[in-house]
Amino acid sequence: MRLALALVHYPVLDRSGETVTTAITNLDLHDMARSARTYGAEQLFVVHPVAAQRALAERIREHWVVGSGKRRIPDRAVALDVLTVVASLEEAYGAMSSAGREGVEIWTTAAASRGLPVTSYAASRARLAQTSRPVLILFGTGWGLAPELIADADVRIEPIRAAASTGYNHLSVRAACAITLDRLLGEQSAG
Amino acid sequence: MRLALALVHYPVLDRSGETVTTAITNLDLHDMARSARTYGAEQLFVVHPVAAQRALAERIREHWVVGSGKRRIPDRAVALDVLTVVASLEEAYGAMSSAGREGVEIWTTAAASRGLPVTSYAASRARLAQTSRPVLILFGTGWGLAPELIADADVRIEPIRAAASTGYNHLSVRAACAITLDRLLGEQSAG
Repeated sequence: MRLALALVHYPVLDRSGETVTTAITNLDLHDMARSARTYGAEQLFVVHPVAAQRALAERIREHWVVGSGKRRIPDRAVALDVLTVVASLEEAYGAMSSAGREGVEIWTTAAASRGLPVTSYAASRARLAQTSRPVLILFGTGWGLAPELIADADVRIEPIRAAASTGYNHLSVRAACAITLDRLLGEQSAG
Repeated sequence: MRLALALVHYPVLDRSGETVTTAITNLDLHDMARSARTYGAEQLFVVHPVAAQRALAERIREHWVVGSGKRRIPDRAVALDVLTVVASLEEAYGAMSSAGREGVEIWTTAAASRGLPVTSYAASRARLAQTSRPVLILFGTGWGLAPELIADADVRIEPIRAAASTGYNHLSVRAACAITLDRLLGEQSAG
């Protein structure tokens, strides 16, 4: 298995359904890097089209991986070392496979699959263990990934839901990423 | 089932193992409230002994539940409505049961159980569905709950782990809370 995550800041939706670019959130990088490293994902691509925002993400990475943050919390250096800052998803595909998009399996975890077929977590877990291509799971900031990214995916994993009906389903991207990794790669309790 | 969560800022450990009081982190309140509401926990107690820090947590709650935040993102009001700010765990126990501590099952999710017996997630899930007492799950900020809280718990859930050995296990409290709720109350995929 080769697995990477992408935190997508463009193209994503805002709350009115328009396609926008969102700003970098410091705790997204920390939490998703720590979850990635805990479950064995090799990279966390931070995808942002704006150079100044990429520079911010690089500064956060440097502070923790080689700067004074590393001396204060060495564990955090191990996690943030998985960050790779890129301008576009195409750049992430190219970093994962010399064949680019065709060489990578793109997965999404869309709450809204817009009528397209979805794959259960159990089937996704089995597929991840068997596939020969590297897998890249996309996570959208803002109000979620733009429809063209969901349509282009090779696997759209079913929405995360509670067993009971609670009338609410609005997890943060940090929580959704953690749960997705645990469902795909977590230890399964024998009871 | 009656379930509540507690985000504990004292007594918790710092990285050298000393007992300290940590500061409120805004995104802890948002992420854990959203996860609580998604999985059906009734309350998220924010436990802080310092009045000024409790006032900060109350201001965050007010902004989102009745203030301008509610007009901008109505979904967030539904989540942050689960926040209850208290000075001590004893105050949380009293809010859950007229019998106080004895009327409540206290659970922890300790990475370090310090040699005390632990309960698997599967067994914890079954117990949560059956117990007649309300359950309060404690989450520690900083470097985790102080040993006396772990020793006092009725259930210490086994550590969250990946199925494979990754050599790293340092999830954020936001991620650990999300995964714990999903393992206890998430939909179980049929494959």
